[in-house]
Amino acid sequence: MAQATPNHTQTVSGWAAHDPSGKVTPYTFKRRENGVNDVTIEILYCGICHTDLHHVKNDWGKTMYPVVPGHEITGIITKVGGNVSNFKVGDMAGVGGLAASCLNCEYCNDGQENCCDQLQFTCNGIFWDGSITYGGYSKLLVADHRYVVRIPESLPMDAAAPLLCAGIGAFSPLKDNNLLEAPGKRIAIVGLGGVGHVAVKFAKAFGHHVTVISTSPSKEKEAKERLGVDDFIISTNSEQMQSKRRTLDFILDTVSAQHSLGPTLELLKVNGTLVIVGAPNKPIDLPPLPLIFGKRVVKGSLIGGIKEIQEMMDICGKHNITCEIELVTTNKINEALGRLEKNDVRYRFVIDIAGRSSNP
Amino acid sequence: MAQATPNHTQTVSGWAAHDPSGKVTPYTFKRRENGVNDVTIEILYCGICHTDLHHVKNDWGKTMYPVVPGHEITGIITKVGGNVSNFKVGDMAGVGGLAASCLNCEYCNDGQENCCDQLQFTCNGIFWDGSITYGGYSKLLVADHRYVVRIPESLPMDAAAPLLCAGIGAFSPLKDNNLLEAPGKRIAIVGLGGVGHVAVKFAKAFGHHVTVISTSPSKEKEAKERLGVDDFIISTNSEQMQSKRRTLDFILDTVSAQHSLGPTLELLKVNGTLVIVGAPNKPIDLPPLPLIFGKRVVKGSLIGGIKEIQEMMDICGKHNITCEIELVTTNKINEALGRLEKNDVRYRFVIDIAGRSSNP
Repeated sequence: MAQATPNHTQTVSGWAAHDPSGKVTPYTFKRRENGVNDVTIEILYCGICHTDLHHVKNDWGKTMYPVVPGHEITGIITKVGGNVSNFKVGDMAGVGGLAASCLNCEYCNDGQENCCDQLQFTCNGIFWDGSITYGGYSKLLVADHRYVVRIPESLPMDAAAPLLCAGIGAFSPLKDNNLLEAPGKRIAIVGLGGVGHVAVKFAKAFGHHVTVISTSPSKEKEAKERLGVDDFIISTNSEQMQSKRRTLDFILDTVSAQHSLGPTLELLKVNGTLVIVGAPNKPIDLPPLPLIFGKRVVKGSLIGGIKEIQEMMDICGKHNITCEIELVTTNKINEALGRLEKNDVRYRFVIDIAGRSSNP
Repeated sequence: MAQATPNHTQTVSGWAAHDPSGKVTPYTFKRRENGVNDVTIEILYCGICHTDLHHVKNDWGKTMYPVVPGHEITGIITKVGGNVSNFKVGDMAGVGGLAASCLNCEYCNDGQENCCDQLQFTCNGIFWDGSITYGGYSKLLVADHRYVVRIPESLPMDAAAPLLCAGIGAFSPLKDNNLLEAPGKRIAIVGLGGVGHVAVKFAKAFGHHVTVISTSPSKEKEAKERLGVDDFIISTNSEQMQSKRRTLDFILDTVSAQHSLGPTLELLKVNGTLVIVGAPNKPIDLPPLPLIFGKRVVKGSLIGGIKEIQEMMDICGKHNITCEIELVTTNKINEALGRLEKNDVRYRFVIDIAGRSSNP
């Protein structure tokens, strides 16, 4: 940390959950003043990620209540610190999951802050000064500029918000597995939710044959017609699954619910890779035989570093890739969380924090 | 398959289990005559692999009784078919897990028969003619020459036998992960059994820093003094485990008992790889967080192709790498299986099938 953190003397309005019931209510709290390395952001929009549900309900046993969720944040910069040269007041900015890291390790030095061992998140993390971080379900954010990205002018601020987590969650494993500039691979996306639908958009933009594996037959028509999905498999239909054995090069598994990887692994070719980005509450079932036969690979992936998030944003600006969202007003947060829990969202809820949209 | 398989008219003495009690008794059965692509091998030695235990007890629900186990076979060639030019009578030969594959797919054509979708094993497999394969707990084997390797003259036939499965099981993931010619990596081997101890020998021969992760404190002294292990961690000692977080480049997990991968994954550096070669009866617990944080990789590996097994054998000949074995007479097979089940073996049992050794 480069400087002492200013005192937490700014009063901010937000929304917090106070216990594992997960109910979110208006909450007033304090943020630090804008430090020399900080920017202050008037929050316009904040996406509702599945992780928010885990946080408000204390699914991982790590929630520090009251918790102000939210890490898919877009807004306007209203203050910049003395050390900040890459942003100015009025810029459109985005903040994702990263709030702090050591800024000194090989990963931080290499733009992979998401791999830093001292990584702290935008919500329910512990900042350099020991304070608990409060997320984007709030009117105003103070963020170190090293964890802030620029939103391209061509992107709408509401539909761009989920790119900060869902977007990078989908983009990073595609990039890591050399799928940005090697078109024509056979790729499957498991789960057509927030991460899944934007993964489909990236995979199509990068020229791949895209299969969606889903439990929801009702999503097939729209997936094909609107998102351009080439193939759609119902994961509970063992005949359909069996017919696709050993056909896929790469699978991105975005499902946060507990599930077995066995049937999905069988779809991979020899040496094929499955990347997990969802984080179920309990251990995932990994049957050894489908892993061993076919020498398959299971990888984890966790969002991306700041440089990579900016790269993704710029690509989104160029290809006009945004999330499909349902915009909700701040008094509908609990309703949205409830629907998300039932997998009832097309495809990401975004909270209209500043009440800017005329028809939310 | 290149020719009709000859009739099964040869009478062979062996040892078989007849039901899930797993008890092995003398058993006389038929093998095919030596076909044009076959070699006949007088079996001298056969290793006892943990898979044999799974087979005799029907742990995977796939055993076709009576089952003649054994797929770590060394012996002398006594007949060669008309199409066989790479072996002659009197040659020292080895047969591992592979009995048949399609010989026509991209993997078979590339020397990766172990990845062929129609792979059949030396024991409890179904050969091209529809017959069930009987393994190396027997006096004589008929094998297609395309699944037979040469044993270097410098290697003892008894201690070389387990190389055919345990050896290649350890060698192949090291080769696949570029660890043959990149010394100085920090590698851990989980489980110091048949596969584990030979993995240690390979990893040391290739110039790596080798840690053993084990549940058995009693193995530490010998591991360090005899096998040259650099570090020894007790997996149930959470303090020891915690102190090694994020220190390892590569882990080979050889444990066949059910276990969680979580604590082991934590030992890997970012992007580090853990390869699973053991096959527990039940799904492995894969906690998502240690996989996602650190973007770690879990891979499966299944022995190796014939070309790779020959490469390994030749390297073993050159580096004088063999297995540490306990030689047992044929009337001690059940006792050995019982001890193996209790993890009581240093480090591989080998059956003295032909009764050649004076002091078994």
